[in-house]
Amino acid sequence: MISHQQLVIDPKKRGFHIITHDILSAIDLPQSGILHLFIKHTSAGITINENTDPDVCLDFESIFNKLIPENLPFLKHTLEGPDDMTAHVKASLVGSSLSIPIINYKLALGTWQGIYLCEFRNRGGARKIIATIYQ
Amino acid sequence: MISHQQLVIDPKKRGFHIITHDILSAIDLPQSGILHLFIKHTSAGITINENTDPDVCLDFESIFNKLIPENLPFLKHTLEGPDDMTAHVKASLVGSSLSIPIINYKLALGTWQGIYLCEFRNRGGARKIIATIYQ
Amino acid sequence: MISHQQLVIDPKKRGFHIITHDILSAIDLPQSGILHLFIKHTSAGITINENTDPDVCLDFESIFNKLIPENLPFLKHTLEGPDDMTAHVKASLVGSSLSIPIINYKLALGTWQGIYLCEFRNRGGARKIIATIYQ
Repeated sequence: MISHQQLVIDPKKRGFHIITHDILSAIDLPQSGILHLFIKHTSAGITINENTDPDVCLDFESIFNKLIPENLPFLKHTLEGPDDMTAHVKASLVGSSLSIPIINYKLALGTWQGIYLCEFRNRGGARKIIATIYQ
Repeated sequence: MISHQQLVIDPKKRGFHIITHDILSAIDLPQSGILHLFIKHTSAGITINENTDPDVCLDFESIFNKLIPENLPFLKHTLEGPDDMTAHVKASLVGSSLSIPIINYKLALGTWQGIYLCEFRNRGGARKIIATIYQ
Repeated sequence: MISHQQLVIDPKKRGFHIITHDILSAIDLPQSGILHLFIKHTSAGITINENTDPDVCLDFESIFNKLIPENLPFLKHTLEGPDDMTAHVKASLVGSSLSIPIINYKLALGTWQGIYLCEFRNRGGARKIIATIYQ
């Protein structure tokens, strides 16, 4: 049994944002299954990481900016600004989907795990995520 | 209900290649479900990214080459040439599988999203992908 | 039909470790389906890569250390030591879950593919993985 639901995440500033609560407040979890999340964009991604210290999100942004620096002289896809092509690469590094087991009506996340929206554009706008549950 | 089908992608030169059409022309999509793609190789990967400007694929190749440079002096797994170990790491960075929701007989991709085959070897040969549909 | 099972992987030293056998010896595979693996941690990851030459695992560790160096001066999340924040980023680069097709009672891995546990902490301890089978 598979059901899909489209969620819209309000615009966020460039960076890494914990959205576990936004996801959970929008969907009903069955007793057992898998939650699959798919982001319909190529310059934002989703990943799972530390859910407590806000510095982790800030450090993620700093390290990703160092890893994929803007204004590399050899880039060709530059029409939309220096944050565009780098956003595409960052999005593929973290990925566009997540699958999380559902056990006893809850996501079976570890104690420190939260769901991140990774906004890689300076002005990315609202982001659409399809939440699919199979049970 | 789960069904598997093995696809063979013709040899491609090193780089990032949009294969959305190759995938879609080989499989039948149900009304609702998930398409899972799994590449059976360790020096090629699959990811989702921008489907329109060919410069994006070229820039991906340039940035990945800068990110994981060849001929690092400390590498040990060098018997098959300088593109071998780097290909393994690049493959794990993009990943070996994708899951995409199927809604109304179509992949629920965003407007700008396409499926990429990422060929990280200089001469990688044909690549096998298992397409699994669950509905 | 979905079933979950929690596996505990014994503590491993920092680095990349092939755990295909640990996984397969703990679970029963159906004739056809998908195996989903989810690691409940934010400083270790799982990926698929080369299963034969042990040098590949060593080179992975060297390249990841070069890619995400420790002691970057701008980091804020440093209380638990220099291997902590870097471990978080590395974990998101490889990802926290894998999905592998099951065909004829076997994982449909390519000839050279194995499952890696990527331990990014100096002393990570035992790691929990949820193995979910859907068929």
